Formats: sequence, C-alpha cells, structure tokens
Amino acid sequence: MADPSTCPPLTPSSIHSAYQKIKPYIHKTPLLTSTSLDAIASSRNPSIYLSETLPSFFQPLNGVDPDSGGSGSSGRGGERDVPKFRLWFKCENLQKIGAFKARGAFHAVTRLIEVLGLEEVRRRGVVTHSSGNHAQALALAAHTFSIPSYIVMPTISTASKIAGTRLYTPNVIFSGSTSQEREAVVAEVIREKGAILVPPYDHPDIILGQGTAGLEMEGQFVEAAASRESGTIAFNAVITPLGGGGLLGGTATYFSDKPGTLVFGAEPSFQGGDDGRRGLLQGKRIEHVKTLTIADGLRTPVGVTNWSIISDKRKVEGLYAVTEEQIKMAMRLVYERMKVVVEPSGCVGLAVVLFNAEFRDMVAKRQRQEGERERVWDVGIVFSGGNTTMKALSKLFSEESGDTAKEREEGKIAMDGTRNVEDVAG
Amino acid sequence: MADPSTCPPLTPSSIHSAYQKIKPYIHKTPLLTSTSLDAIASSRNPSIYLSETLPSFFQPLNGVDPDSGGSGSSGRGGERDVPKFRLWFKCENLQKIGAFKARGAFHAVTRLIEVLGLEEVRRRGVVTHSSGNHAQALALAAHTFSIPSYIVMPTISTASKIAGTRLYTPNVIFSGSTSQEREAVVAEVIREKGAILVPPYDHPDIILGQGTAGLEMEGQFVEAAASRESGTIAFNAVITPLGGGGLLGGTATYFSDKPGTLVFGAEPSFQGGDDGRRGLLQGKRIEHVKTLTIADGLRTPVGVTNWSIISDKRKVEGLYAVTEEQIKMAMRLVYERMKVVVEPSGCVGLAVVLFNAEFRDMVAKRQRQEGERERVWDVGIVFSGGNTTMKALSKLFSEESGDTAKEREEGKIAMDGTRNVEDVAG
Repeated sequence: MADPSTCPPLTPSSIHSAYQKIKPYIHKTPLLTSTSLDAIASSRNPSIYLSETLPSFFQPLNGVDPDSGGSGSSGRGGERDVPKFRLWFKCENLQKIGAFKARGAFHAVTRLIEVLGLEEVRRRGVVTHSSGNHAQALALAAHTFSIPSYIVMPTISTASKIAGTRLYTPNVIFSGSTSQEREAVVAEVIREKGAILVPPYDHPDIILGQGTAGLEMEGQFVEAAASRESGTIAFNAVITPLGGGGLLGGTATYFSDKPGTLVFGAEPSFQGGDDGRRGLLQGKRIEHVKTLTIADGLRTPVGVTNWSIISDKRKVEGLYAVTEEQIKMAMRLVYERMKVVVEPSGCVGLAVVLFNAEFRDMVAKRQRQEGERERVWDVGIVFSGGNTTMKALSKLFSEESGDTAKEREEGKIAMDGTRNVEDVAG
Repeated sequence: MADPSTCPPLTPSSIHSAYQKIKPYIHKTPLLTSTSLDAIASSRNPSIYLSETLPSFFQPLNGVDPDSGGSGSSGRGGERDVPKFRLWFKCENLQKIGAFKARGAFHAVTRLIEVLGLEEVRRRGVVTHSSGNHAQALALAAHTFSIPSYIVMPTISTASKIAGTRLYTPNVIFSGSTSQEREAVVAEVIREKGAILVPPYDHPDIILGQGTAGLEMEGQFVEAAASRESGTIAFNAVITPLGGGGLLGGTATYFSDKPGTLVFGAEPSFQGGDDGRRGLLQGKRIEHVKTLTIADGLRTPVGVTNWSIISDKRKVEGLYAVTEEQIKMAMRLVYERMKVVVEPSGCVGLAVVLFNAEFRDMVAKRQRQEGERERVWDVGIVFSGGNTTMKALSKLFSEESGDTAKEREEGKIAMDGTRNVEDVAG
C-alpha cells in the first residue's frame, strides 16, 4: 500500500480527486426510491407491515398514515412523535463485484500506480487477506491493470467466495483461520514476491475511495430533487453500515464540509458487534470483536485511521445498533417491497431508520424543533453490498427447530448457523 | 369489461394508443443488462455456473468463453455450436403492484371509462376473481379513478395476497376454491351491484395493455443500442412467459409488423403446465390445466382470444418449456448475479435461453446460417413479476427431507410445498 505519509489528506477535495481516478472503472450505481418504504418508515410502527395479516383496510400509498388518523400532525398531548422520511437508497449491491469495496480497491491500486509506476507494481503484485468482498474487489482492480494479486483466504472460506475471487486471479492462497496464521502467509508472500499489502479498510486511500459513494449519491440526489424544489438541496441525513469503518469514514469525510447533512453509522448489536457505539461510550476504540452476527461484513473492529474520523463528533453525528431480528425484518422489506437483493450487512442502515427507537425519537424531536415546514427528512441510505446466496438466504429465513432457536437466543450460534467466528474483515 | 366488438383491433397501432392511455399511471420499468449473464448464456454449459465450486480458474467477464478455448469460433468438426447472446431484461418485477398486470388493468379501466363514462363506471364498479397479481392490479387501477372494485378470492388464498389487495379496496369477497364457486360469487356481485367483469387475460383490452411492455422495451433497447451501432436496430428475439397469454399475446401483436424480431413464449413443463406448446403440437387449444408448477402465475390454460394470436406462426415463432429445476437455477442466477427479485413465473424466459437445448440449438443454427457478422443475438427477456415472499423463497431453496423430495419427483406435491391446485389465473 502507498505509504500513508504520501497519501492525500482526508478531506472532501481528496474524495473528488479519488472519484476522477476510479470513475472509468466502477459503476455509477442507481439511487432508488420507494413510495411504499417511505410510507412504512413514516408510520408509527413499521414492524406491523411485516405481519402477514395487515390490520384491516388501509392505504399507506395514498400518503395517509394509518395509525395517526391520517392527519400527519404530531405532538398531540403526550403521544410519541412519528418521524417522517423520504428515503434514497444508494445501491452499491449493484456495484462491480456486488459491493462498494470496488471503490476503495480501485483507488488503492490507481494510487499505487501513481506513486510507484505501473511497471514496478506489475513486477511486485498486490496482496491481502480477506474472505469477503475486499478479496474480490482487489483481485478485480489488480486484474484490470494486469497486476498480479495474491489473495490469502482461510481454508474454511465458503466455496462460492473462493470461486468468486478466482474469477480474477489464479493466486488464491490458503491459510489457517486465526489472524496469526493468515498474517504469516501474507508475510511470506511479501517476502517472496515483494508484493504490496492492500488492507481492507484501515488506510487513507481505501477510505477516500469508499467516500466516493457519498459524493456520487449526493450528486444523484441533487439532480433528482432539483425538479421538486428550489433553494439549497441537501440530504438531511446519510446513514451507512459500520464494520471496519472504510465506508462510514469516507462518507463522513465527504460530508464534513456540509453541516446541513448529518452522518450516522449503523451496526449489529449481536454479541457486541456494535464495537463502534460501545467505543464512543467508553471514549476509546475497541480493538477486538468476536461476533457471529448475520451482518458478516460488519464482524470486524473499527480500524485506527477510521476511528479518528468516526469518533469525531463534527464528522459522525451518532452510531446506532440493531438486533439480528431487525436486520432480518429490514431485509424482508427490501426483498418483498423493493425487489432488490441486499446482503444482511447492507440492510443495517435501513433497519436503524425503521426500528431503532432512539434514532426515530431523535429524528422526530429534531423535526418538531425545525417546525412543520421541514418535517420530512431526506435520508440517504447506503445498501453496501448484495453478495449473498440463495442457500444462505433460505437458511436464514426458513423455520428453525426449537433447539436451534434456543441456542441462537443464547448466542451460541449465529442466525446463519455459523458456529465459528473470525474477526477477519472485508 | 368493454364489449369485445367495441374494442380496437389487435394491431401494433392499437398498442401505441393503449400506451398513451396508461402511460401516466404505470412505471417505465428499467431494461437491465448483465455482462456476467451474457457470458453465462453464451457459454457451452450454463449450468456449471451454478456449481459452488467453479471449474478452476477462468475469466468469463473478459469475454473469453472458458469452454471454447477462448476463440469464440464455432462449427469446428462435429462439435455442437454454442449460441451467443446479449440479453436485455425488462424489469416488470419493478412495475406497480410488482407485475406487468398493472398495464392490462389500467388499459381495461381507462377503456371502460372511455366507452361508458366515468360516472357510470363509478356507479357500477368492477369485479374479477383472482388470487394473484391481477387482483391487486385491478384494485389499484380502479382505486386510482375512485371506482369501487370487488375482488373475489378463494378463502384459501395466502394472507399476504389478501393483504396486498386490501391496500386498494375494502371489497375482498371470499368464495370456495372451485371455478364454479368463484364464478357464482362473481355472478352475485354483478347481479347486486351491476359491477363490470374485468377478466385477467382473455380480452382484447387486456392483451393490448400488456403489449405495451413490448413497445416500451423496444424503445429502450433502440435508445441504448443506438450509441453502439448504426443501421437498423432491432431485437433478434423477444421471449416472455406464457400463462393465460395476455403478455405473450400483446407482445407478439406489438412485434407482428417487425419481421426482424422473433417472438417466443416460455412455459413450465411440470404436470403439463406447457399447455400452449402441447396445444400447438395437437393443433388445438388445451382447455384445462391442472399443474402445481412453482411458476404459479402460469398454471392457467391459454385464453381463447390469446390462442388466436399465439397459434399464429406469423406472430409467435415458437414455444419452449422448462423444468422446475431449470426455473430454480435461473432464479438463483438472477438473485445472485443480478441482485434483483423475480418470482418463479418471471424466470421462465431466461430459463429457456440458458437451459433449453432445443432453443439453444435453434439459435446456434440460425446464427451459423446468418454468418459470423451477425452471430450475437440481442434478446429481450421479460421478467414478468417479482411478487414472492422471503418465506416462499426459503421454502423453495432450503434442503428438503428425502420423503418430500420423492413425493415431489413423483409429482404429488409442488416445489413450493402446495398440495392443492386451482387453475385460476392471474
């Protein structure tokens, strides 16, 4: 990886430069809207929409809130306020290799070429260890420039992920599954080939690359909203998943000079997967996480550079956590209402908007303070990836035996049935 | 329904008029492409891409066909030719109410208003019996014009479908599940309210409405392809699912004056669900079908008016059938590669392109005859709907017990576990 001291500063203008570099190689993914999800998010109790038997007759698509008497007004007596949303979904599940990780990987590789020259990078190659989306992303980015890539994967990785990575590189190298074992193999590749390490999230070039998702979605939002209103057009809030902190760090960096847009992070709470949120409470980064959350892209602790951004209140307004059941409910709504495939990690932002009472109360309160005219918030939600399989899905949503459900509740096994856990990222 | 004698003729220009009428009320759904599905469809054996362990290292995304030595040439010695495709997916799964049925329903309702006047239609209301997408489509179209709608559904309908219909009408009326029982309830509604029957597919106004999917996708294709080539731009082929024949009949009507575009229909073969194909072989329409195919929107026999179009060789070039397993394989590819949710009925067209040997051989043969320059076919595939639930999906793709698998093989139960069957449509 490029020496961090040679990296551009973590500023919005560096993200603009990153975007110019990677634009030819990535998809400009769509920014979708959904009238029906807007209505659900803006209702008093979104979870009733997941019931198979909806409560009698109502018409949310008419903009009538079934549970507020249709008036849309708020603050009557002691009643809890209902927040109002217009949601904008940035579909990085439709990005190359099915996840935003392509952005960071292409930026890291183009930066390496810029600093060392293409011949040198081709001679040495790049290396990483990952069992997830970063593996494929780096292999694709390297392949695009005919640079050899070496991807270290634990032997226990799923066959489909190994196969996905092999689409772009013949050099998948197996290792044991502990951090030590994996890092030993990486060290060997570096020693033998002189390969350059490209980590999954804890590096300025990766963070700046992921931040282009924020830049792109803002542009698309402004274009779409311009026909509707005049004056300053800006997201009221943007929310992304938080795992290692590449996506959230980059997005928060991009919006850091736009005080009108609040940036939030979303995490799974299962088995302490909300290390970011807990870290903020403790006032320091949590270094180790061991969770089997179904949001498998978010099982990792926040990185060091990433933490410096995320713990900066001027950049990230707050972090919120959701349960496994809430992630599953959000997934179901995305599948059944929007008809798009998003992996569990990709749904945590929407899960916060729909089901996290603390978040919803905070929004409702701010909306009340801002006065009636501003009551509806435009919220950008990043669907970070779509790499799941039909097999994994059906495991997740099929009825389970009583025993398994009990074990799960006790935290012994994860929702997807995994019994082992590694805090490997990306 | 408008008296068929007052209906516009079944011609492309009537579809243009229908489009003008319904355009304000429907979504212009996207026409998607997928490099990876193009590569898979153009390879010798698409089913290997469903194996969890892909055969060693290959790079289909480079346009290199892994199983043809990378040359892309054909006709060497006695080897079977491999057809070459560029696929264009018309996403009616993203249409209002999640299926193309919104097109026919809005056309039928706007035509009724035109013929009888809005007041008269409002006074009488509209009625249909359906447990599927047509129920929701008609309820939505009627609701849009403040026309009462009466939807007769068998008591055994799934709760989610009843709830979906109730979003737009308070008048869901239950009946027994046989045709006689349902029709008796419809007759009662007609007698009592004077309501006007809007059938799901066997009517010119419905057929013309569904045909607008063909019109729209052709326009989108021409626009997208214009940047690539000059001269005449046309789909080489278009393929749609065939159930009652509204969508295929309308699409074939639209392309009937465009001899460069061949129109095909796709059916499920399970338990004789390929009544269209069998009818063509016998030289007459098959009137009764009783199949539990997972493609539940296609369990119905072809309608009378629809048959007159579909059996016309100048309009429909051929019908092809696929197995339950092939439908499931196509669904998996759509989910895992394209990240969109399509119901089983919506995947039969792609299943034919990928897995029907007769279809693929026919295309390869024609491509050989047309010569090298024309070898890649642009094929429009209609994803007809996306109304499935996570529960249904996980049932379909979860591993099943030996007993169930055996019963299934013997045709005793359907892939989704259903043990009853009604040939009710739409």
